[in-house]
Amino acid sequence: KEGARPYRRVRFDNERWKRHRSIGRYWRHIATMPSSRVVRGLLAPCSFTSLIAYAAYVFQPVEPLGLTSTLPFELTSPLLGLLLVFRTNEAMARWLRAHDAWARVVSRNLEARDVIATHVEDDEMRECAGRHLLAHASALAARYRTNGERAVHDDEWANVLMPEEREAMESARENRPAHALRVVRSVMSASDAPMHAQARIADCIATLTDACTECDQLTSTPIPLSYTRHTSRFLLLWLSLLPFPLALSLGIAAVPATFFIAILLLGVEEIGVQIEEPLSVADIEGFVAELHKESAEADAQRERVNELIMRKMKTSQAAIK
Amino acid sequence: KEGARPYRRVRFDNERWKRHRSIGRYWRHIATMPSSRVVRGLLAPCSFTSLIAYAAYVFQPVEPLGLTSTLPFELTSPLLGLLLVFRTNEAMARWLRAHDAWARVVSRNLEARDVIATHVEDDEMRECAGRHLLAHASALAARYRTNGERAVHDDEWANVLMPEEREAMESARENRPAHALRVVRSVMSASDAPMHAQARIADCIATLTDACTECDQLTSTPIPLSYTRHTSRFLLLWLSLLPFPLALSLGIAAVPATFFIAILLLGVEEIGVQIEEPLSVADIEGFVAELHKESAEADAQRERVNELIMRKMKTSQAAIK
Amino acid sequence: KEGARPYRRVRFDNERWKRHRSIGRYWRHIATMPSSRVVRGLLAPCSFTSLIAYAAYVFQPVEPLGLTSTLPFELTSPLLGLLLVFRTNEAMARWLRAHDAWARVVSRNLEARDVIATHVEDDEMRECAGRHLLAHASALAARYRTNGERAVHDDEWANVLMPEEREAMESARENRPAHALRVVRSVMSASDAPMHAQARIADCIATLTDACTECDQLTSTPIPLSYTRHTSRFLLLWLSLLPFPLALSLGIAAVPATFFIAILLLGVEEIGVQIEEPLSVADIEGFVAELHKESAEADAQRERVNELIMRKMKTSQAAIK
Amino acid sequence: KEGARPYRRVRFDNERWKRHRSIGRYWRHIATMPSSRVVRGLLAPCSFTSLIAYAAYVFQPVEPLGLTSTLPFELTSPLLGLLLVFRTNEAMARWLRAHDAWARVVSRNLEARDVIATHVEDDEMRECAGRHLLAHASALAARYRTNGERAVHDDEWANVLMPEEREAMESARENRPAHALRVVRSVMSASDAPMHAQARIADCIATLTDACTECDQLTSTPIPLSYTRHTSRFLLLWLSLLPFPLALSLGIAAVPATFFIAILLLGVEEIGVQIEEPLSVADIEGFVAELHKESAEADAQRERVNELIMRKMKTSQAAIK
Amino acid sequence: KEGARPYRRVRFDNERWKRHRSIGRYWRHIATMPSSRVVRGLLAPCSFTSLIAYAAYVFQPVEPLGLTSTLPFELTSPLLGLLLVFRTNEAMARWLRAHDAWARVVSRNLEARDVIATHVEDDEMRECAGRHLLAHASALAARYRTNGERAVHDDEWANVLMPEEREAMESARENRPAHALRVVRSVMSASDAPMHAQARIADCIATLTDACTECDQLTSTPIPLSYTRHTSRFLLLWLSLLPFPLALSLGIAAVPATFFIAILLLGVEEIGVQIEEPLSVADIEGFVAELHKESAEADAQRERVNELIMRKMKTSQAAIK
Repeated sequence: KEGARPYRRVRFDNERWKRHRSIGRYWRHIATMPSSRVVRGLLAPCSFTSLIAYAAYVFQPVEPLGLTSTLPFELTSPLLGLLLVFRTNEAMARWLRAHDAWARVVSRNLEARDVIATHVEDDEMRECAGRHLLAHASALAARYRTNGERAVHDDEWANVLMPEEREAMESARENRPAHALRVVRSVMSASDAPMHAQARIADCIATLTDACTECDQLTSTPIPLSYTRHTSRFLLLWLSLLPFPLALSLGIAAVPATFFIAILLLGVEEIGVQIEEPLSVADIEGFVAELHKESAEADAQRERVNELIMRKMKTSQAAIK
Repeated sequence: KEGARPYRRVRFDNERWKRHRSIGRYWRHIATMPSSRVVRGLLAPCSFTSLIAYAAYVFQPVEPLGLTSTLPFELTSPLLGLLLVFRTNEAMARWLRAHDAWARVVSRNLEARDVIATHVEDDEMRECAGRHLLAHASALAARYRTNGERAVHDDEWANVLMPEEREAMESARENRPAHALRVVRSVMSASDAPMHAQARIADCIATLTDACTECDQLTSTPIPLSYTRHTSRFLLLWLSLLPFPLALSLGIAAVPATFFIAILLLGVEEIGVQIEEPLSVADIEGFVAELHKESAEADAQRERVNELIMRKMKTSQAAIK
Repeated sequence: KEGARPYRRVRFDNERWKRHRSIGRYWRHIATMPSSRVVRGLLAPCSFTSLIAYAAYVFQPVEPLGLTSTLPFELTSPLLGLLLVFRTNEAMARWLRAHDAWARVVSRNLEARDVIATHVEDDEMRECAGRHLLAHASALAARYRTNGERAVHDDEWANVLMPEEREAMESARENRPAHALRVVRSVMSASDAPMHAQARIADCIATLTDACTECDQLTSTPIPLSYTRHTSRFLLLWLSLLPFPLALSLGIAAVPATFFIAILLLGVEEIGVQIEEPLSVADIEGFVAELHKESAEADAQRERVNELIMRKMKTSQAAIK
Repeated sequence: KEGARPYRRVRFDNERWKRHRSIGRYWRHIATMPSSRVVRGLLAPCSFTSLIAYAAYVFQPVEPLGLTSTLPFELTSPLLGLLLVFRTNEAMARWLRAHDAWARVVSRNLEARDVIATHVEDDEMRECAGRHLLAHASALAARYRTNGERAVHDDEWANVLMPEEREAMESARENRPAHALRVVRSVMSASDAPMHAQARIADCIATLTDACTECDQLTSTPIPLSYTRHTSRFLLLWLSLLPFPLALSLGIAAVPATFFIAILLLGVEEIGVQIEEPLSVADIEGFVAELHKESAEADAQRERVNELIMRKMKTSQAAIK
Repeated sequence: KEGARPYRRVRFDNERWKRHRSIGRYWRHIATMPSSRVVRGLLAPCSFTSLIAYAAYVFQPVEPLGLTSTLPFELTSPLLGLLLVFRTNEAMARWLRAHDAWARVVSRNLEARDVIATHVEDDEMRECAGRHLLAHASALAARYRTNGERAVHDDEWANVLMPEEREAMESARENRPAHALRVVRSVMSASDAPMHAQARIADCIATLTDACTECDQLTSTPIPLSYTRHTSRFLLLWLSLLPFPLALSLGIAAVPATFFIAILLLGVEEIGVQIEEPLSVADIEGFVAELHKESAEADAQRERVNELIMRKMKTSQAAIK
């Protein structure tokens, strides 16, 4: 299941949206149900509750034990539903925060590149900053990946940088994205860019640092564990006791009914748990790829824009004369 | 259904609000029900569940199978309701974000125009920036439209720009709105506008870029797919099993009852899915049109305002003498 | 009902809060129920459902039609409740946004006045900006009022301005508040106010423009219509079918019971619809009046504050000597 | 009850939190129930519903009137619960906004003091600004208090200021906190503090003004009245009709049961109403006291910090030589 | 229980997340249930309700007293569930605010260090500011710890500072973090750092002050007490009366059923109460340790970055020649 997490990362385009919205989705969802990762992950606990249901059906022990009453289940089902949905909603909010943080990373990184391109005249310096901006994104991505995936991102930033730059960045073991931003700040400070550009870059760096802090926090702090455990404990107890009244009123049908209810409830909880740590299921690779593409275009268009402005200035100076 | 998405874009005025609020809305909503896109889109799955209800009524297979109990449905209906409503609410939040992003686009684009009009003296340069601000909005609109609609917006910005400007913009295949903003930044940087104006423009450009990033993110990242699929799967299973207890207690009336319940529940889910990708149902055209109108007025009023201020300055200088 | 919307605008003071909180509110609310606008507006659809209840009681057609079962109602009532409350909550959020926007208008408008008073020395210019700040609020208010009420606000700003200023403002047909802000920006730019004051004014103008854009958006974009219609349709269908099981178990009492339930449910929906377009029920007049009062005081106190500071400076200069 | 509102203002410390969290809280809450202000305030309406329950028990009029069915109550109880909880949640959000606003007042007021202490050299001017910052908080507190409590705060700021300053502030009848901030702005503008310090002070003043506007808005605008009235009306009707089916199934026990249910439901509504206007139950006095204490320390530490920096500068200048 | 609060502080890494997400969590949660702090803390009230259930079973007093009806419980269970979940959600929001505040503390503290490292040339001054930034975080941590834990943090900042600095900081009894920031501001103001750097530092200091104010507020102001008490009172009453109808329909099984329901409901409330004051269960130590580690690396990398930039500048100057 852990190995399948990269496959949870999706990037939608127009075609996928059309498919996502089409009415055929109902049949598709039903047809793909046996291969659903959520469903398959939950087979063990769901089978366990179904087994209880089968035992309850066979031995019918319920009458003497007073387990026939549905009252306790009816009284607690709204609360259980609320607990599950609020917890999953909280996890969704974390998921959203991670994506927003990365969207800001792309946006501010590109802004910093544009500001530097406009205000830092020196080619050497400007390109050094530009390389470190790309390296920043890749190093940040490496921070939230493990093993092979981390190595890919580490190669990425190493390939972007010059040998001496790479060496300096490698020596920053604790926080490499911060190192990259420190270089950008120093380049900017060494340049004679006007104050407003300096302020913008400082602002970009602050936002990029915040995004990193936010992702770190999402990774290091889960939803309060007591909440998670309490929900999961009572969900399982509830599902283990439910078969007794069900077997009485449904007979053998209690077995699939229990299975069905268990998957519905445990599924909601499982989804919340799976997206609670959102970085490993977020398509960070997509964000980084987009940043690289847009950075390349920004560099390519720079000359064209400069030319355009030059021509306008000449025209207007000619007009003045 | 896909073709009908443009018709979902609405812009209300006072008259429509009156109609929207009038008590007559109840009859109108009932009367237009057969032509409702949501209802018509759902005919297939709803008819399917009704068919099951009919079969259940005819064969009455429920007693031996233990499907008569309503307990599983009663226990799960609050959770299903919560899942549906929270998911649709999440989709609504996305819808709102898209609209807020575009409202910011209009607001900041107009601010940039005003700041440039006040602080960039050179006519050639000022008008070049003004044209690119208009082009920015149209190019951004094109980004979230397909086929014919995209072509309209592409023509829009091409018509606004001068030939050489158009050519430069066309070569930016990845992100044309960013190109337009780059020109604006360069114009500003080449001008001798004071530092606070430079800072404002940088701020406007950052906000406009963020709005684009936000829309991109809404378009590329759906609500976690596992949540969507889990909800849709169990909704359909729930609706497929419901006819059995219904047929027992309602008889033939179970057929319309099932249909009614299916449309209610599937409708809520369908609405959420339809607004989950909000850009294609947002009235971007309205935002762009408003921007064009207000930009034209801003340009037209510029002379009048300048004149007014000139006169005031003369009066007060005369008073000093 | 439309004509009664201005009466929904309230402004609370200490006395009204006491009354609002007193335990006597329960009797007062019950006593004023027949005159409640919500209740009276809903008489038609509620009477309609009661009529159905009476018919159901008289003809008792339920047994053969299988309409006796309460199961469909029990299974759908939680979802219906959630739909209603979430929709009304969404409308409340819009209502809050409109009020927040206007609170910002007052706050930033007064700040702009203070900054200009402190940093623009020239009397003619400062007063011109001050007048346009007042005109801005009135013109913004006019934008969200119709007919007679709009005319009042239009007179308001016209009376504040000098003839030539009024003429210039009148020619801005599309967006008069923006025109007023443009004049303020030009006054500021023509003055020799220090850069930080210029930046503050630019910031105030941006916030004031945003507030206008936000109000425009609330006015032009309703809550997704499909959501509104789906809720209203199924609410009415639900209420039209409910009398059948009710008549069976309550007899003639089903008539008032249906009426009672209909008002409860439709009332929640109606409240949401009434505040969905919040500007026409917001006490904009109160905000504008407050702004005028505080602006007058700010102008009046200006001399006193200047005097105070002058005296301090003299004291301290004397001390230095 | 109104007189008891000041007692609702609490300030927790470590000891109170321990008590708040201890398991003994359950017994304490039960034991203090008869003295609870919420419970006592609701005695009248709760007794009224209990009286109905007693009458229903004695006369048993239910059978012929068809009031025995519990169906209407079961169908509406989820909606009623949602209405109550969402309304109380909305009130809680207002309560939070008021506290956040005052936390910002303390934070920004202290920042302004520090910035002025660092950048305004002139003793006379700096102390004048310092006095007005203290006066600002007290005058703001007076704005949200009545009678005796207001007089205390009015004395507070009057005692802080010099006679001439007091006089100037007294003449600002409409908005005294704004007057205090105007003096601070003028002091700053008359000083030769660097631009970044000027910008910070302008920012502090804007935030302090916003906090005041926000509190004003919370005080002048309640939660939409139609929502409040609708909830309260149907709550009372619901509770008045509930005794009939209760009396049938519970007998004389319907009397305490009705009382119990009435207190539970009305209590939730009452709590929402009591915190809807949050300023009069917020511990503003605590915020002001904290501000005074921290301001005194800031003034006291100023010398020490200056000395420390001086010594460092000397050391490093010596090192250079 | 109070002594166990430090153990609630957790910091997740990749391994813990894997364990957290694994399907084995269900069995683990069930197996650790007897040692759960929430469950053990609630043994007293849960046993109390079970005892009532046992008495109800033995004496069966229910019939004559009319306590057999489940109606009151069914009607109130949705509201009780909503109250519990909304209250716990509110507590979770406070918990999140505390963590966000500390994440900002780390982020802004490191930014201030970087800005000072770049723009303050004087070694003595820069290191003094650097020491006070570290001291700020430790002093802030001490503010939200008691006894032994506070002493550890107090030692921490004392060890970081020079003797004279320590002495100055010790004399600030009211608010030591504010003192540390005051030193940083003074160092910055005494330096000849450019204006944009001064503005950044002022911004960092403001954010760090706000974070402290926010934590103070969370510590001094609980969720409205009336809400907490009302929920807890009626929860206990509800649970004390529930055994009567349960005993009738479940017999002796009512004893464990009551226990089970009591733990479920009281557990949700208890979790909310435990995280309502979030600072004492937040891993502040982890935040401080991270800050120290990253600060050390920032200082260590400073030389390397400077060297890199120097070399680039030489290269480009050589190229110009």
